Amino acid sequence: MRSHTYNESLGTARIMARILDGKALAKEIKDEVKIEINNWIRNGNPAPTLRCIIVGEDPASHTYVRNKIQAAREVGIEAETIRYDANLTEEALMSIIDSLNKDKNINGILVQLPLPNSIDERRVCNALAPEKDVDGFHITNVGQLCLDMPTIVPATALAVVEMLRRFKIDTFGRNTVVIGRSKNVGMPIAMMLHSDGRHDSGLGMDSTVTICHRHTPADQLEFYCRHADIIVSATGLPKLIKADMVKPGATIIDVGITRVTDESGKTKLVGDVDYDEVVKVAGAITPVPGGVGPMTVAMLMKNTLQAAQHNSFK
Amino acid sequence: MRSHTYNESLGTARIMARILDGKALAKEIKDEVKIEINNWIRNGNPAPTLRCIIVGEDPASHTYVRNKIQAAREVGIEAETIRYDANLTEEALMSIIDSLNKDKNINGILVQLPLPNSIDERRVCNALAPEKDVDGFHITNVGQLCLDMPTIVPATALAVVEMLRRFKIDTFGRNTVVIGRSKNVGMPIAMMLHSDGRHDSGLGMDSTVTICHRHTPADQLEFYCRHADIIVSATGLPKLIKADMVKPGATIIDVGITRVTDESGKTKLVGDVDYDEVVKVAGAITPVPGGVGPMTVAMLMKNTLQAAQHNSFK
Repeated sequence: MRSHTYNESLGTARIMARILDGKALAKEIKDEVKIEINNWIRNGNPAPTLRCIIVGEDPASHTYVRNKIQAAREVGIEAETIRYDANLTEEALMSIIDSLNKDKNINGILVQLPLPNSIDERRVCNALAPEKDVDGFHITNVGQLCLDMPTIVPATALAVVEMLRRFKIDTFGRNTVVIGRSKNVGMPIAMMLHSDGRHDSGLGMDSTVTICHRHTPADQLEFYCRHADIIVSATGLPKLIKADMVKPGATIIDVGITRVTDESGKTKLVGDVDYDEVVKVAGAITPVPGGVGPMTVAMLMKNTLQAAQHNSFK
Repeated sequence: MRSHTYNESLGTARIMARILDGKALAKEIKDEVKIEINNWIRNGNPAPTLRCIIVGEDPASHTYVRNKIQAAREVGIEAETIRYDANLTEEALMSIIDSLNKDKNINGILVQLPLPNSIDERRVCNALAPEKDVDGFHITNVGQLCLDMPTIVPATALAVVEMLRRFKIDTFGRNTVVIGRSKNVGMPIAMMLHSDGRHDSGLGMDSTVTICHRHTPADQLEFYCRHADIIVSATGLPKLIKADMVKPGATIIDVGITRVTDESGKTKLVGDVDYDEVVKVAGAITPVPGGVGPMTVAMLMKNTLQAAQHNSFK
């Protein structure tokens, strides 16, 4: 039944999906943050400050941190990277974090993940002062998020919600599938997407949410995706989402970022979605690169400004 | 297609669902807790202690607290109710909690909800020392739960997971629908049901979870329920789940408890499920009363013992 309906729709689908341009939206948001920071400084406050700690030599992590620092400086955040080599001990890192926690001139702290295996990431995340934890990974921030309380929300999850809002994708009572249950991405996305929009956080999206993950059988993933008005995929599995899994007109938010090598030996970044085919079926879709990625950086800037404003009220 | 399959099955369904007897299982668990407490005391530890604070005269709340205190005493917990009338101020309650937090002889504290409107429930839940919060409502406990860390889990949610385990209902990769998104019941149930069973909490059930709620349209609720291997309903809406919404052989966990008055004027407790009809279709079902209710009390006893043991290691 469903595949019949689907084929019919494909036959009449002459218009490609609306492209949800995350790069352009990220610029818009960074411009807004910049104006707000200018006003903040004009009102006599110091520029917001951010410290990004990076341990080891993972090239992707160094690229991410460089992008964050650059974006921060563009919007007027006083940002610095603090680099350590991979043999930094957990105790040394804890003591560095402790100094930054106590330093009244520092508003935001970010520890780039992954950390070397010798360091317990969860312990590190919980060592940050919750109000300086601009990644929103601290237990207290997670607890507040899951209780729909105002808090610092992990930037990627916040990026997804912000894109749905700014692009005016209706979520209320709609069917959403979130694929991936990671605690930093999938889980907080599912949390906001199903929650009550009237609660204090103001981030609830009131949709019916299905959480799929590695143990969801392939036929069941297809079943849920075909029924979804919105699919948010955060797995890192290229081409997981194919055109015949997508309901015509559905919105596709692709959180995956994987570096692949093509036949000619060139590398490129791809998402979880078979973009070239899905774009012919979906109603709206985020590209990779240029979708959720730049929005994540923009939301980190918002989180840092929020941390600075919150800190100053204490 | 699906309703055809369903009618066929009804025609051949001569066996009624297995009744998941929560009352009997609760007794079993309380017996286990009692033995563990006896050993605990024999090893030179004081009996675990529990204080239940109740504010105001809500008769249902008084019944719940009475049942909890009685169960606690049966298993060897030294338990007392602390009663206040409805005009107790929030500040007075905070100061009472503060004393109990500081009292080394008290292991578990429970504040019966709902509180009078003049008192901010969230503030009260967060005022408890997290390690004495046997209801698991404190932000820190919620954060730990949502990160799959060992913690104190809200007793009703824990009761659902414990019933699925002890009755050997397979959840791995199965389709589960959780109806209701309350922060004390539906949310933690959905969290454990979808989470990774290999994580530290040991409570992850690895099922594919759909979270339905008041804004899920009726036809969509039916769609998801008919596809589910397991339905957990926590809404307080009698007869929300009807036989034609249930896949033959599915497991039905009914968390609802509503007092209704029948034609003759008698009151009785009913769940969310149209039990007399659903029992003919389901593979397994919890009755109301005698299902999740008594199991919630038993899990609260486990939580109190856990709090006592945890406190003593500090």
